[in-house]
This record gives sequence, C-alpha cells and structure tokens, in this order.
Amino acid sequence: MADYQQIKKELEGIAVEDNPALVKQKSRDFYWYSPILKAQLDNVVGDLVVSPKSEEEVIRTLKVAYAHGVPVTPRGGGTGNYGQAMPLSGGIILNLMNMNKIKAIHPGRVICEPGVIVSELDKETKAHSGQELRFHPSTAQTATIAGFIAGGSGGVGSITWGGLRDLGNILRLRVVTMEAEPRVLELSAWDLQKVSHAYGTNGIITEVEMPLAPAYDWVDVIVGYDDFMDAVRFADALTHRNGILLKEVAPIAAPVPYEYFTRHKPWLKEGQSVVVLMVAPHSMEPFASYVEKMKGEIRFRSDTVESMKGIPHAYELAWNHTTLRALKLDPGFTYLQVQYPGPNHVEKVGRMVEIFGDEVIGHLEFIKFDGAIQCSGLPLVRYTTAERLEEIIRIHEENGCPIFNPHRYTLEEGGMKQTDTVQLAFKKETDPKGLLNPGKMIAWDNPDFDFKAGKNYLFPGLQAFMET
Amino acid sequence: MADYQQIKKELEGIAVEDNPALVKQKSRDFYWYSPILKAQLDNVVGDLVVSPKSEEEVIRTLKVAYAHGVPVTPRGGGTGNYGQAMPLSGGIILNLMNMNKIKAIHPGRVICEPGVIVSELDKETKAHSGQELRFHPSTAQTATIAGFIAGGSGGVGSITWGGLRDLGNILRLRVVTMEAEPRVLELSAWDLQKVSHAYGTNGIITEVEMPLAPAYDWVDVIVGYDDFMDAVRFADALTHRNGILLKEVAPIAAPVPYEYFTRHKPWLKEGQSVVVLMVAPHSMEPFASYVEKMKGEIRFRSDTVESMKGIPHAYELAWNHTTLRALKLDPGFTYLQVQYPGPNHVEKVGRMVEIFGDEVIGHLEFIKFDGAIQCSGLPLVRYTTAERLEEIIRIHEENGCPIFNPHRYTLEEGGMKQTDTVQLAFKKETDPKGLLNPGKMIAWDNPDFDFKAGKNYLFPGLQAFMET
Repeated sequence: MADYQQIKKELEGIAVEDNPALVKQKSRDFYWYSPILKAQLDNVVGDLVVSPKSEEEVIRTLKVAYAHGVPVTPRGGGTGNYGQAMPLSGGIILNLMNMNKIKAIHPGRVICEPGVIVSELDKETKAHSGQELRFHPSTAQTATIAGFIAGGSGGVGSITWGGLRDLGNILRLRVVTMEAEPRVLELSAWDLQKVSHAYGTNGIITEVEMPLAPAYDWVDVIVGYDDFMDAVRFADALTHRNGILLKEVAPIAAPVPYEYFTRHKPWLKEGQSVVVLMVAPHSMEPFASYVEKMKGEIRFRSDTVESMKGIPHAYELAWNHTTLRALKLDPGFTYLQVQYPGPNHVEKVGRMVEIFGDEVIGHLEFIKFDGAIQCSGLPLVRYTTAERLEEIIRIHEENGCPIFNPHRYTLEEGGMKQTDTVQLAFKKETDPKGLLNPGKMIAWDNPDFDFKAGKNYLFPGLQAFMET
Repeated sequence: MADYQQIKKELEGIAVEDNPALVKQKSRDFYWYSPILKAQLDNVVGDLVVSPKSEEEVIRTLKVAYAHGVPVTPRGGGTGNYGQAMPLSGGIILNLMNMNKIKAIHPGRVICEPGVIVSELDKETKAHSGQELRFHPSTAQTATIAGFIAGGSGGVGSITWGGLRDLGNILRLRVVTMEAEPRVLELSAWDLQKVSHAYGTNGIITEVEMPLAPAYDWVDVIVGYDDFMDAVRFADALTHRNGILLKEVAPIAAPVPYEYFTRHKPWLKEGQSVVVLMVAPHSMEPFASYVEKMKGEIRFRSDTVESMKGIPHAYELAWNHTTLRALKLDPGFTYLQVQYPGPNHVEKVGRMVEIFGDEVIGHLEFIKFDGAIQCSGLPLVRYTTAERLEEIIRIHEENGCPIFNPHRYTLEEGGMKQTDTVQLAFKKETDPKGLLNPGKMIAWDNPDFDFKAGKNYLFPGLQAFMET
C-alpha cells in the first residue's frame, strides 16, 4: 500500500479528497448499464481523488504518482459505460473537471482545457460566433470534452461529420506523460490516433483543439411509423437527401418510445416506432414535405410546442440515453452496440428484426462512415443470461453485423478485438511503468492474449476488489 | 412584326434599350463554347431589352408583352453555355440585373431579388453573419442568383450539398406568370421543381430564398500528380474522409493545368495532372497530412503564397472555367458533360481515359449525389467533326457514362432526354401563349417529338435568323 499521507503532503496546494464516500463516487461511471460489468466492477474504488486546476498541477501530480508507483486513472464527467474511468488497481483518480477554461474561439475551431462540459462549450461558442462542436455525446450536459475524446467515439452530429476517429474531427491535443519527469507533447493529424479513445492509458490530455460547425436552433422532431422497418427506410432515404440539414437521426422501435420517453408521451402513439431527429430550422419546410411523401406522422416538433419546459432535448432520447431511459423503468434490459455495414445496412437491420423479434428491440443511429451513410445500433436486449447474450452477439456477427461489446472494460474487447499497435507503442513511450488507467489495455498487460480464442480477459488487479 | 414603338410607349417609366449593338450584346451567352451551338445560334438577336427594377415593373412588362403577343426571354448575367438566355424568337429580353437588392439575412437563409450577382450575395452574407451560399457556379463574379437557379445545376460546394435539384437547396421562389393579368405565385418544397432549371420558360423569378452555409476563408490548393488516375484516386479517397471540410475537388488532366492555367503556371509542373481544391482553413493541417500519405505534391496553397494579386480563385480554374481557359488559348477544344455513376465511378473514368487517350482530356468534379460521393466530368474534347463528337458521346453512354449534352439549346436534350411533365404542366398554367423563352422546351413546341429516335430538335423559329 502506498503512503497516501506522504503523497498528500507532496501534493500540497493541489485539491485532494480522500473521504471514502466521495472517493467511491468518483470511482464510478455508467458501468452498471451492463449486468456483466456491474458484477465485475461493483467493488472497484480508488484511494485518492486529485483535482488539478492547471497543466502544471497535472505534471506535479503525475511526478509524485510516478515516484510512489501509484496508478493514476483520469476522469471527466464519468459518463462512460464501460468502466473507462474506473480505477481497476485503485490509486489516484485524476479528476480533470476543474480544468474547464475555454482559451480561444476562432472561425471553425476552439481551444480549451480538458474538463469543459460539452454543452457549456457549445453554449459559449454559439454565443461567441454562432458555432458549436461538430458532434457531441447524448451526455453533453455532464460529459467533458476530453472525456469524450478519450472514451467516446461519435454522437449527435455524426450523421454529417462521422466520428472522432476521422482525421480532422480533432485538431490538436496536449498530453502529459507519466514519467519521472513528465513531458508535454503536442499531437495533431495522424498522431491523434495515439491517444484518442485510449481511455487515458497513455497520457493525460491537458488541452484540446476541436473543429467547430455552424450552430443552429436545431428543431427536435419525432416522426411516427406503425412499422419499425418503415421508420428505418424513411431514416435511410432522408439521410441521403443532400439538401436537408440534419444533426440526429435515430429510429427507435416500439414499445420503447411510448413506454420510456415519459416526458414526450403526450405526443406519442402507443405501439408506434419513431425516428428521433434534429433538423436545421431552415430545412424544416423541405423536411416536412419529405416526411409527408414518405407517409410518416410528425408527432412532435419543438418549434411548434407551447413550452419545452421539462421536456428533454431530442438528443437525450438517443444514443445511450435511449438505453438509460429504458433501464431506469425496466432493469430487465441491457443493450448491445452493433454495426450494420453498408450499402445493405437496411437489409441487415431487417434480418435482425426477423431473427430476434421482441427480444432485441431496434435502436439505430444513422452516421457517416468513410463518406457513406450507414447505421450503427444500440438495440435494447431483454436480458436473461450471459450465455444468451453471447449467443445474440454471435448471431449478429454471423450475419455480418459486428458487435462493439459494451460488456467489456478493455479497449480491445470493446473495440476492434485486436492489439492497437499505435496506442501500445505510445504507451511504452509515455507510461513505462504502466501506471495510467491499469487493466484497460490487454496488449500491455498480456501481450500474448489470444483475441480469437473466445475467452474474456480478466485483469488480475481486479482480484483485490473481488476479495473485499 | 410587333409594334415596338407602341410597346415602348406602354412601358414608359421602365428602362428599355433598343440600340442594336446593345440588344445584340444582351442576346448572347457563352453558347460559343459549343461549335455546334455557335453555328446554330450565332445570328439570334432580340428586339428590345427591358430592365425592370421591381416586381411591379416585371408584371407591367409581361402584361404588355402578352397583349402584343411578343416573346419574353429572361436573362441574368448571361453566363450560361447552352443559349439559355438567347431569344430564339426575338422579342423582349428581360434583363433582371437591376433587381439586385438583398432583402433579409437570417441564420441559415437569405432572401433577395433575382438579379443579385452571386459573389456579391456571398460577400454580403459573409460580412453580415459569416454565411455564404451552399454552392455557386464558377461564374460567381458575373452570374446572378436567379440565373443560376433557372439555368444551372450545381457547382462549387456541391461536394457537400449536392445540387439545385435537391430538396432544401432552394427554399422559396416568387414567380410572375405570363398571362393577360400576370399572377404572383410563391413556390416552395416540391413545387420548386416546376421552375428551377426551366430556363425561365414557365415564369419569371422575382424573389429568391436560399439556404446558407458557414463561410470560411477557404484555402485554394493545387495538388500535383504525375498520373491523372492517381489524382482521381486521391480525390475520391479524400472526399470520403468525413472530418476534412472541402468546398471544391476537381481533378484535371495534363496538359491542361500547365498549358492553360497561366496565372498559376509558376507553381505548376509541366506534364502533371492536378487536383484543384478549396479546403476549410481549420482542415488544412489534417488535409496536408492526408496529401502526404497519398503521395501528392502540394504545388500551390493560397494561405502561404506571398500575394494573391492577379491570381484567380481556385474555383475559376474549375467547372466551366476550366473549359473557358482551354478554349481561350486553343479554340480547337470543345467539351462534354459526363456523369460517372457510383460506386464504381473511378473505374469508369479509367475506362474512358484508356479508350480516348489524349482526344478527351479528363476534368472531373466530385459531387454529392443522393447522399453518396461520385463524380461528374467536364472533359475537354479535341474537336474534329460533329460526327466524331456524336461518336464520343455514344461510346461514353455505351460504357455507362451518361452525357448531358452541352451542344443542345433545349431543356430536354441537354438534360434527361425526356419530357419533364411537371415543368410542362406548369408552363400550360403560367404561359398559355407560349411566349416565355420560346424554343427551349421541346415538349411544348412538339409534344410528339421522339427523344429516342436519335435526331436533334431544331426549333422552327430559328429559321428566321438562319435566313438573315
């Protein structure tokens, strides 16, 4: 056990917290979405929360942690679902939410600290010059920008811009290394792959430069269809209309909308599937004409509703908020993350609907992928056993629908199921002792792990928490 | 012959011009790009130029013309290439360039009169609120907005937004009808198909509402490749990168760039093909990284050049300005307009290069078409005979590359080669005497014309000019 009294002394002047209840609170994210992660990670807890206010304080913290051999797990709003921000080996939780200054706003880009809340960033850039982030997670109200970069992939706006992995969707990151003498590195272009979506395993982000898009007073719209596949076909056709500017397009199957979108219920129809949308105000007239042509029913539009008070944003019905709303009212659900590679993505969705019926309830997100429109999915699954969940995953994959497994806490198992050599090489450079967010990069802990063997990785460090 | 003295009297208070030299000047467009149109239309001339300053003056003019049975051919900047604005039956040329007021600029849209010069519109909306048109023709410095709508299809920016035919890319048009008592109609959404790209044959546009996109200080870039197909493959790959914001992507084969882009010559390399681009400033760094990966040579970028004085905009090297620059120095050229339908558009381009070699010199424009990236082309053709030109067209079409023939002055032959029933029905409603821009809509003049017979339409009214 590290000497935390000594560590606290060495961190004098930097905000630290070791009250067990508060430390426990900061040791969690939305891992409990997954019954599997819940069982594995429920007891995970850090030792000390450190909340630096500047890059200089980050450097000091890392230097002290390195000297003591203490793990450091960075954390923003803690809105991830895979235990991204959970300290699997205990140690220091590096809470970056106090580094929340916006440094500069230019045409098409913003420079800020890592801990700015995403919706705050959008609010400021919109007020400054009618700009906003290209896309954001559905958790924009609580997530931080660097948390999104380190632990997210895409979101509301990805229908136009694709995801964080796409060159140009992050412009620059400053990163502090975990060494005896921490270095500050500036990364741009291809080098950004080293740390984006690396869960903070190979550097602490201290500054962010992101591209901006024009901000509009997006109109929230819900279009109803009696048949889910009609909703899907509408969404697919709509997203191929060049002239209609959209920010969000999510078909969601019955019974989810009527049963779980409680604040919108007065506008919804029992048994209907919906498409949740955000439409640019100046595209509303052509959009409405297109809905009519496609025989959809506009059940809700925020520009004609009497008051939006108490009604959540459309994007808070989509992405993982769909999952959240269903889970809150029915804990019997869990979910998956599915890709339906184009160009026959609609056909693939239809096949899954046929195979699983009501056991897997459709929720798609239309996105741009390598310049083409396709859809990914966050279907809700009526959970029975871990074995059945594995089977559902297998059937998807056998039908050409890869799963990004949200029931895994490692980068590789939740992602491409192979070693990311770029991220691993960078970790060797920036974190020689392996102290940054331990247990999340299998390739670091166990270079011989066989991703094809079908076995789940279990981080040995977790044993400590299992025994408590 | 109509009584033009009487007509002038009835138009008192409205600017008219009957000086033959000036009338002749306003009877022309860039029809001479085509040796075929040049032969057919060289003698076409109107009788009177009328230049209204308001919708009310348009209404008065049409009322007088209707009463006298005089044809009216509307005209903006006269930058079309197919004789769109040429009065095939003489009569009144309705010059709309004095109706050039911008009425209102809102987030995402602008409302203006028809005769505003496109680049002026962009300048004003950019100064007002950092906005600009979604796309514009390469003739933006001289073309009018309604001329573009009535006679154009897409242009610089179509890589992001598609074309004018796409729902949402025009928001609203006000149109005056050609009747005893002209009516004013407001068209939006699907109804816009009635008059957009109708050459003013079925109504005179008096007000325009267009969507706007964010304006950036676009960087002009020229990337060089020794092999044209390498340039094409680069352009295709680049346009599929979601995160890099582009406004223009035009691969142009050697020898055109070095031989005919005279002001850019100091930066170009003899024998190289190029891709002409406009890149958002905040995408330049990722863009440059991508060029490097694709082994291209950045030969010119406007953000690092010492002075742009005397150097044309990149978009003035593209679209029909490529054609213009080649024609100016070598009148032995003519050109075609080709579609290379995706997803195997690159392969189709390659096949044409193989077949025609140096006789047809590649010039592509990457655009968005129904939500997917593909390319259209404006290849330069070394003109020998009309028969060989027809053969070149035929070979393209046999290889799955449809031609929009720029050597035809009718809507149908230059376009879809079939009756546009929507536009025809609207003409019956708005122009019962057939006085608006006669000779441009075959379906009106000759409902039995067989588009499949392979014969060209010859407007009988042209006889009058042939005999002079």
